[in-house]
Amino acid sequence: MSADANRIERSADPSSLADDVVVAIDAMGGDKGVGAVVEGMQLSLEQNPRLRFLLHGDGDSLSGALRNDRALSGRVEIRHSDSVITMNDKPSKALRSAQGSSMWNAIESVRSGESSVVISCGNTGALMALAMLRLRRAPGVDRPAIAVLWPSLNRSGYNVMLDAGADVRAQADDLLNYAVMGASYARHALGIARPRVGLLNVGTEEHKGGSELHDAARRIASAAPAGDFEYIGYVEGSDMASSRVDVVVTDGFTGNVALKTGEGTAQLIRNLLEEAFRYSILSRIGALFAYTSFRRLQKRIDPRRVNGGVFLGLNGTVIKSHGSADATGISAAIGLGCTLAEGGFAERLAARIALGGSAAARQEAQSS
Amino acid sequence: MSADANRIERSADPSSLADDVVVAIDAMGGDKGVGAVVEGMQLSLEQNPRLRFLLHGDGDSLSGALRNDRALSGRVEIRHSDSVITMNDKPSKALRSAQGSSMWNAIESVRSGESSVVISCGNTGALMALAMLRLRRAPGVDRPAIAVLWPSLNRSGYNVMLDAGADVRAQADDLLNYAVMGASYARHALGIARPRVGLLNVGTEEHKGGSELHDAARRIASAAPAGDFEYIGYVEGSDMASSRVDVVVTDGFTGNVALKTGEGTAQLIRNLLEEAFRYSILSRIGALFAYTSFRRLQKRIDPRRVNGGVFLGLNGTVIKSHGSADATGISAAIGLGCTLAEGGFAERLAARIALGGSAAARQEAQSS
Repeated sequence: MSADANRIERSADPSSLADDVVVAIDAMGGDKGVGAVVEGMQLSLEQNPRLRFLLHGDGDSLSGALRNDRALSGRVEIRHSDSVITMNDKPSKALRSAQGSSMWNAIESVRSGESSVVISCGNTGALMALAMLRLRRAPGVDRPAIAVLWPSLNRSGYNVMLDAGADVRAQADDLLNYAVMGASYARHALGIARPRVGLLNVGTEEHKGGSELHDAARRIASAAPAGDFEYIGYVEGSDMASSRVDVVVTDGFTGNVALKTGEGTAQLIRNLLEEAFRYSILSRIGALFAYTSFRRLQKRIDPRRVNGGVFLGLNGTVIKSHGSADATGISAAIGLGCTLAEGGFAERLAARIALGGSAAARQEAQSS
Repeated sequence: MSADANRIERSADPSSLADDVVVAIDAMGGDKGVGAVVEGMQLSLEQNPRLRFLLHGDGDSLSGALRNDRALSGRVEIRHSDSVITMNDKPSKALRSAQGSSMWNAIESVRSGESSVVISCGNTGALMALAMLRLRRAPGVDRPAIAVLWPSLNRSGYNVMLDAGADVRAQADDLLNYAVMGASYARHALGIARPRVGLLNVGTEEHKGGSELHDAARRIASAAPAGDFEYIGYVEGSDMASSRVDVVVTDGFTGNVALKTGEGTAQLIRNLLEEAFRYSILSRIGALFAYTSFRRLQKRIDPRRVNGGVFLGLNGTVIKSHGSADATGISAAIGLGCTLAEGGFAERLAARIALGGSAAARQEAQSS
């Protein structure tokens, strides 16, 4: 299918065009195959009929998966790609042979303005490298970050944590940008007008942690008014799920370890819980009575419902869906992308970074 | 009570003296007061009648707490201290005024050989600073580490993780020592003959992480034969509770965040679980049926049962009990100390470090 065909198809129903939210999906690379992607698109379209999709990948596979699908008819355009970046490709290798891949093409469709957001189930490192190459970093951003939603005791049900692993290092300036970007993201994704931002440390006392962190703390505190967030100081690992913070800022090494530790702990408890319920006749009866309550709990801590790491600090919105995401997970990522696109997140974030950066620069100039 | 009184009291029952395990306890500083400490000692003595205690703290408070206690009679000696290091004291301040405090005296009793192990509920930073000052670092150790037990799917029920926060930085050499010390600890505390050691990273692929970590990986792999452990390569946060590793090695910043993140996640799920069971009449009935199974689960993930961060790399065994530990928690820490003392852990660890260090040095010399 050519770009012309796309234009013709889109203009077929001119009344709805202005309100359509166009999502580009790199359908290749997920563990569950293109079938899960198509099913996820269906689930999302049921919730939001304004969605349209540019589906990038192997044309034959995608046509096959869509063949008997009526719900998606007229809302999906297949964009054939000749190659796929695999999960095992190093970012450096992926970059060399990326042109023409489904990931490259999906990113290009955001770059050209055809779609508002791109979602990929593929290789995180390659996706970040390609997105940085094609979309470029937003002015003032040296290190982009990956932000994730973390189940918490807050009213929204979630906290934001970043960086979840875009870069293993972060300097004070990067952590400042993470604070500004994370606050903006919390505003758009969770609807929190003035998010509370905390800097992750090994204790809440001022003297804890190293000098880089102390420096970051000072800068974030200075940038809070311009960034329209509240800086609450240091937070600890135990605050990830707490209700005293909305945005937890840390470097990508610590953030990645914390994220996977939290997921691992939740998985351990789920396993032990199932074991506990299977243990005796009495506990099996107990499980029957408590079934509905348990389903609610499972739903609350279901990692599929918070699927989608958002790349912040680029000229365009990129969402990394978990490689093992099923239809529910894919749909969660699409829903998140839709919320961000409808709120004009990419543009507002760029404005915030510019404002945060200039405010921080002014502060620096005044204090020196 | 004087040191002479102690010698006299101990010689009262000469038949048992050789087998006694003497534990020094800094009874001050815990959130639950000296009552919880005394109760924890009782619980431990029921499990191990060979235990004897040197109880350091305010003499009047300790006498009061022990007044009506018959079980502990003859097994406890109160050692009065004039001062207490508070939870809010910075390590630097604590050091200046530490002499004569309960923490100082408890550490001294290990230094003099009167007791085999010291347990404190007090300020972690001050305890580490004082222990380094008085016990000194073992030869070859630049940065001591705190090792904790982590509930896991392993047969022993636990993994070892270190450093949990003794130092926010760690270089390749430190991580190597953590591997050697962690393996030795797993052997003594968990009875694993040849522990599997993993280095914490953001992915298992060789190129993940920074150059310091790659350097540490090479050194740990070289030291594995002499250290009598198996090096399995990089592990991720999701492996903290997994059965593919026994000892997870990382710097104190990441380790501290991971530990508190895991605890926070477990706490969140416990809260949601209780909420789920209270939700409806049916779920309350369910809770009744499943009660026993649930108690088993709660016990398995109860943080009180793994209470006790062990300081590794000093000339003597120091255990930090959680500040909020109750009698069960205190007893767990005492039990751990007893296991380590009976196995001659401190001496064997020192030998391991010397061996590991010299093996690594030989390796370095050969490869250069």
